[in-house]
Amino acid sequence: MSQGQKVKTAITPTREENYPEWYQQVIKVSDIAENSPVRGCMVIKPWGYAIWENIQKILDHQFKKTGHENAYFPLFIPLSFFQKEAKHVDGFATECAVVTHHRLEKNEKGELVPASPLEEPLIVRPTSEMIIGEMFSKWVQSYRDLPILLNQWANVVRWEMRTRMFLRTSEFLWQEGHTAHASKEEAFEETIKMLNLYHQFCHEYLAIPVIKGEKSENERFPGADHTFCIEAMMQDRKALQAGTSHFLGQNFSKAAAIKFQSKEGNEEYAWTTSWGVTTRLIGGMIMVHSDDDGLVLPPRIANTHVVIIPIIHSQETQETVFKVCDDLQKKLSEKLYYKLPIMVKVDKRDERGGEKIWHWIKKGVPIRIEIGQKEIQDKKVCLTMRTKGHKEKVFIPMDELDEKVPLLLEEIHQTLYKKATDHLEKHTHFFDDKEKLLNFFKPKNPDHPEIHGGFAKTFWAGDTALEELLKKEYNITIRCIPIDELKKEGICPFTSMKTTKIVIFAKAY
Amino acid sequence: MSQGQKVKTAITPTREENYPEWYQQVIKVSDIAENSPVRGCMVIKPWGYAIWENIQKILDHQFKKTGHENAYFPLFIPLSFFQKEAKHVDGFATECAVVTHHRLEKNEKGELVPASPLEEPLIVRPTSEMIIGEMFSKWVQSYRDLPILLNQWANVVRWEMRTRMFLRTSEFLWQEGHTAHASKEEAFEETIKMLNLYHQFCHEYLAIPVIKGEKSENERFPGADHTFCIEAMMQDRKALQAGTSHFLGQNFSKAAAIKFQSKEGNEEYAWTTSWGVTTRLIGGMIMVHSDDDGLVLPPRIANTHVVIIPIIHSQETQETVFKVCDDLQKKLSEKLYYKLPIMVKVDKRDERGGEKIWHWIKKGVPIRIEIGQKEIQDKKVCLTMRTKGHKEKVFIPMDELDEKVPLLLEEIHQTLYKKATDHLEKHTHFFDDKEKLLNFFKPKNPDHPEIHGGFAKTFWAGDTALEELLKKEYNITIRCIPIDELKKEGICPFTSMKTTKIVIFAKAY
Repeated sequence: MSQGQKVKTAITPTREENYPEWYQQVIKVSDIAENSPVRGCMVIKPWGYAIWENIQKILDHQFKKTGHENAYFPLFIPLSFFQKEAKHVDGFATECAVVTHHRLEKNEKGELVPASPLEEPLIVRPTSEMIIGEMFSKWVQSYRDLPILLNQWANVVRWEMRTRMFLRTSEFLWQEGHTAHASKEEAFEETIKMLNLYHQFCHEYLAIPVIKGEKSENERFPGADHTFCIEAMMQDRKALQAGTSHFLGQNFSKAAAIKFQSKEGNEEYAWTTSWGVTTRLIGGMIMVHSDDDGLVLPPRIANTHVVIIPIIHSQETQETVFKVCDDLQKKLSEKLYYKLPIMVKVDKRDERGGEKIWHWIKKGVPIRIEIGQKEIQDKKVCLTMRTKGHKEKVFIPMDELDEKVPLLLEEIHQTLYKKATDHLEKHTHFFDDKEKLLNFFKPKNPDHPEIHGGFAKTFWAGDTALEELLKKEYNITIRCIPIDELKKEGICPFTSMKTTKIVIFAKAY
Repeated sequence: MSQGQKVKTAITPTREENYPEWYQQVIKVSDIAENSPVRGCMVIKPWGYAIWENIQKILDHQFKKTGHENAYFPLFIPLSFFQKEAKHVDGFATECAVVTHHRLEKNEKGELVPASPLEEPLIVRPTSEMIIGEMFSKWVQSYRDLPILLNQWANVVRWEMRTRMFLRTSEFLWQEGHTAHASKEEAFEETIKMLNLYHQFCHEYLAIPVIKGEKSENERFPGADHTFCIEAMMQDRKALQAGTSHFLGQNFSKAAAIKFQSKEGNEEYAWTTSWGVTTRLIGGMIMVHSDDDGLVLPPRIANTHVVIIPIIHSQETQETVFKVCDDLQKKLSEKLYYKLPIMVKVDKRDERGGEKIWHWIKKGVPIRIEIGQKEIQDKKVCLTMRTKGHKEKVFIPMDELDEKVPLLLEEIHQTLYKKATDHLEKHTHFFDDKEKLLNFFKPKNPDHPEIHGGFAKTFWAGDTALEELLKKEYNITIRCIPIDELKKEGICPFTSMKTTKIVIFAKAY
């Protein structure tokens, strides 16, 4: 967050004034989503859904390239299946939406009430391991039937008491990969492969640097042997878990009886994995890149790269200006940026120029181009980049535009990525002293109790109880045990024990 | 259904022997879907889901081209919203899955039971008019906010007592368009535009001729002023409703208070529409085109156009044969059919050639190519089309393949379309006599009580009560009042009254 002179911004409050409220305002002014009258559920509006569609398109292509196929499994999970894996059901029991009736009827007072109770209650899927495992058990007989590599794009429901748009909603959209393998090694390899795919996607498309790591036992997916994750740092220095990949061992295959005859003729349990990312990625994208003027869209995920704003001073010139804008749209749309066509909008709405400019700033479009009678005469357009001040204009000859725009989009991507990477590095510190580490998380400014240090790396030999204590007392958790950290030995400042395990502590969403 | 000498078929029973059971078997042997252990819900397997993905891709493109945007609305609808439109709630009350609790807990016996009752029960959406209407009412103030043209790809739940895969399942996938307009005319135009889009899609991509028409009051969507539909004829001559487009008038905008200030400054209610197609289209596609050897995929919707089967007689030749197959796959994949890349699979599984051939016949792949040592020497491949007998082979020079394959795919599309059109025409009759019409629906063969005439056209001046009587006594319903019928006057054989209304009666899925 930049310090400095107070300038007029499109969003009140600014990030510095009130980060959580700023986040809500970015969503509002960019018109990407809205709270619904259904408790804890949101409406994803077209400008936001287009981002999800692009995330889907890119990931879906990558899943298929790595041998996965899509399928679709039921929304409902019978209670009896759900309880087959003990840890799994314990992990989700407090947040299950339960269907108990399959009809409505009028009571004596004429009010509509649930009728026809189900013999067995159905859980609205919070995740699909149990129902997919049940099907896998029918499909797998021999090692020849393995591996099974499936993915599902779906909605899931986890009843949340405190919700926040995109980050934590009762219903959300996601993809869930589910695979079954004949060997432990192959399943483990798959788990890491998908973790790497998510890691690469965040860097390459969302311009978000994320840290790959393993979760501590406390934060593990209920029923998994190992949970791996990617963690990102938001502008308020809090962590956001952006995706997970689980090595489920044989826990779910034992629960659902996914058995096969091995090459050697023995009956064995399959090894399974699951992995997912959700619409939460959109929340992360907002909190990493957006500013006090609204949304900032990373160009490789943007559904609109360029908006052309015709500047009309009189009715007579309108037709000419519109025509030049349309021609330019057509020309630019034929060019590619990052292997996909450049998406261009012309804003012909009957509004003042200034209104339109602010409209598109708030919506985060990477490049704005203004064209009026003067620009047509000079054969130059006035171009502004979302990542620069809105008064920082450049004038570009019209016939160079289709060459320049892809380069400028790339410059914006690199700018966003560098800024986010610098932020992450600047606010990640290594601690070998317990007090200094805890002090790192204390507010420096009484007016802003939420502002703290960031990510604290440290050697760690503590146990689950100590982790829980730190969570309770300081609201910090182990985000992950980073994978890419060089192995070395040191002293855990909490237990004074020698260890090679390094962890990252942070406050988290 | 072809009469004639008994030949060995991949599917038992054949269409003639037992059509409903044949349908289940096609689904099974082609591996496109499977019943799940969740009552009334199915699992769509990769080979089936790929068909749905193609349907989505094509329709989504067409919706966007006609100005619609995608959005996402909550899965749950609070009971109080749901009842705002009286006819709507009456129409859906008997088939609603109701969420009443949001937690599970253990009772004294240690059994997991629903806990934490919701203050207000939630309906799992059977359709989204009420929740989307609620949001529209917030978004619309002035005529400038109209039209709103949205679409949603989603899952919906309608609790069905008797289910059949793809045709009638408790949960199904669909798209639902929802639009709001400032004038009646514009909303009506939208309703017909989307009906035409569905009609065109079925003909152009699924190779299914469908009849456009309006539903009678009896069959109308609960809460609509007019329901339009497309109806297709299956091979057993029964009708399948393949898509609907509803003109909702101001019923839902009054229920949800979608009001706006008109250009003239008056407060008016918006005019709304909704329209949808579902995974049922896949059921229709199967029942129109498939045969006694399994699935037949129309090429424009197929996810695999060509399968190449290497014929290996000895280990030594395997490498050479595989290489030729791979090269051919690469070459063919670069060609387009119907504006999209040709999708080619090479089946390298360790199975006998005959097994492989039948495998792909049952899965409905339009073109099979066999390549062995001999074919490589002769520089010719052996090619078979799914729409011809499996022994009807042609030999095509390898270097002509990339030119020939698109033409053959087109030939298959045309063959399927013509066959389905001939079938529809052959079994559609016009009746001006009541007894003859009713006789048309009586079984001719006591062994096959389900075989009947087909579609019966007639002048109709009957009322709802008469319609219900015919449904009860003869199991026939008015499928639609065809739109494209030439207007003329005649006598309704049921009431002896003069009318210009022509309807189609049929037995239906």
